[in-house]
Amino acid sequence: MSRLYVIGIGPGSLDLLTPEAREALGAVTDVYGYGPYLKRIQHMGAFACHASDNGDEVARARQALAVAEEGGVVALISGGDAGIFGMASALFEAIETGPASWRETDVKVVPGVTAVLAAASRLGAPLGNDFVVMSLSDNLKPWAVIEKRLIAAAQGDFVMALYNPKSRARPDQLASAFDCLRKILPPETEVAFAHHVTRPNEHLELSTLAACKAHRADMATLILIGARSTRRVTRPGGRAWLYTPRSVAET
Amino acid sequence: MSRLYVIGIGPGSLDLLTPEAREALGAVTDVYGYGPYLKRIQHMGAFACHASDNGDEVARARQALAVAEEGGVVALISGGDAGIFGMASALFEAIETGPASWRETDVKVVPGVTAVLAAASRLGAPLGNDFVVMSLSDNLKPWAVIEKRLIAAAQGDFVMALYNPKSRARPDQLASAFDCLRKILPPETEVAFAHHVTRPNEHLELSTLAACKAHRADMATLILIGARSTRRVTRPGGRAWLYTPRSVAET
Repeated sequence: MSRLYVIGIGPGSLDLLTPEAREALGAVTDVYGYGPYLKRIQHMGAFACHASDNGDEVARARQALAVAEEGGVVALISGGDAGIFGMASALFEAIETGPASWRETDVKVVPGVTAVLAAASRLGAPLGNDFVVMSLSDNLKPWAVIEKRLIAAAQGDFVMALYNPKSRARPDQLASAFDCLRKILPPETEVAFAHHVTRPNEHLELSTLAACKAHRADMATLILIGARSTRRVTRPGGRAWLYTPRSVAET
Repeated sequence: MSRLYVIGIGPGSLDLLTPEAREALGAVTDVYGYGPYLKRIQHMGAFACHASDNGDEVARARQALAVAEEGGVVALISGGDAGIFGMASALFEAIETGPASWRETDVKVVPGVTAVLAAASRLGAPLGNDFVVMSLSDNLKPWAVIEKRLIAAAQGDFVMALYNPKSRARPDQLASAFDCLRKILPPETEVAFAHHVTRPNEHLELSTLAACKAHRADMATLILIGARSTRRVTRPGGRAWLYTPRSVAET
């Protein structure tokens, strides 16, 4: 039976790569992934590295499945957790639409610390109550769906974590999302920008929905939008923690 | 300056405890947490273990803050990630409502692999698109808020991950949640029960919203409810993977 790993390598620092992921990387012959992610882990095994651009993830998964079928022990890697806007979904799409033999592959998905958990840990405890995780990329879903989900999340008073806030091809998504939310949520709603979390250029910014500027985000920024109950705890030196209490009052 | 760690120890298997968490545990003098979590990590350092029941987490955080102020290097631990229905929010609540000196504490939150990531990795890639994470416990929020959020999540066509589906004190929450969702979502909506994930008695069950039975869940079960696009990929031997495609069609 051919074997294929899908491995989440964590948000950046290798201190957040799990022992299970490290062990799997020590056991494989071929690793497929986005070039910058491969660079982080290429010293961890004797495998061949197959770098590809972000883009056609299903094609990458098909290539990995074919190599696994020929006897390779293959890993697909993603930053963070491979199940959250990563390679795991692309893999199962490739399997579903591929030859029947691919369904016999022994797939092992190795979970990882996804970006929002690392970002939240740096900010305090903004995810301390119910929350939504969504991608603002409209490469694969229409903007109307994104807008519908933003509105539903606001109506449910969820904390929101927004992945993929912008890219060169989509510079205006985040500004549109903020505009959409400003029609529903109070202006004092807490907003945090977590840039490059766990990497050397990590940087946090706290703002509010009224004041936040979409141009502050880049591709490696994660955006957190508070619920109505999310609070800022000020600290000496002008810094603050952001947290969402476990209790919610009757509405 | 007093120092305090809040550490997520992962969902069960120590193969998912991060190196950062392990290093922090090696550096502390006192660890506070729920007894069964302490048992998992008590061999990892020379610290004193302070076990407490699940219950008054803010009181536990206050105790830890007081010991840290006296010079101890203290850790609060949670299963999974401490920011997701864990000790991190309780800690910041204790700081906000405590003496001003506590705001000078050097708090380091160490993220972990939260239960839903491990559960999803076992099932396939059910979180492959936008999702909601919520707790069904009404200890700290009214049932009306939970129901409002379930409805919002269903209207937004989010995948849903439900933590704390039931307890001895709240045996009927999950049945009520299923009833609420059956009024909105199609009967063929995918539902998965992930029991005791990464532990020796791990067990997965796939069902549908029409067929699922709340009594199958216990305190250590995580419930996943698919979006409209969530699919089952059948495998030889009657097994199946669950995944949510990255693409969403126009609605």
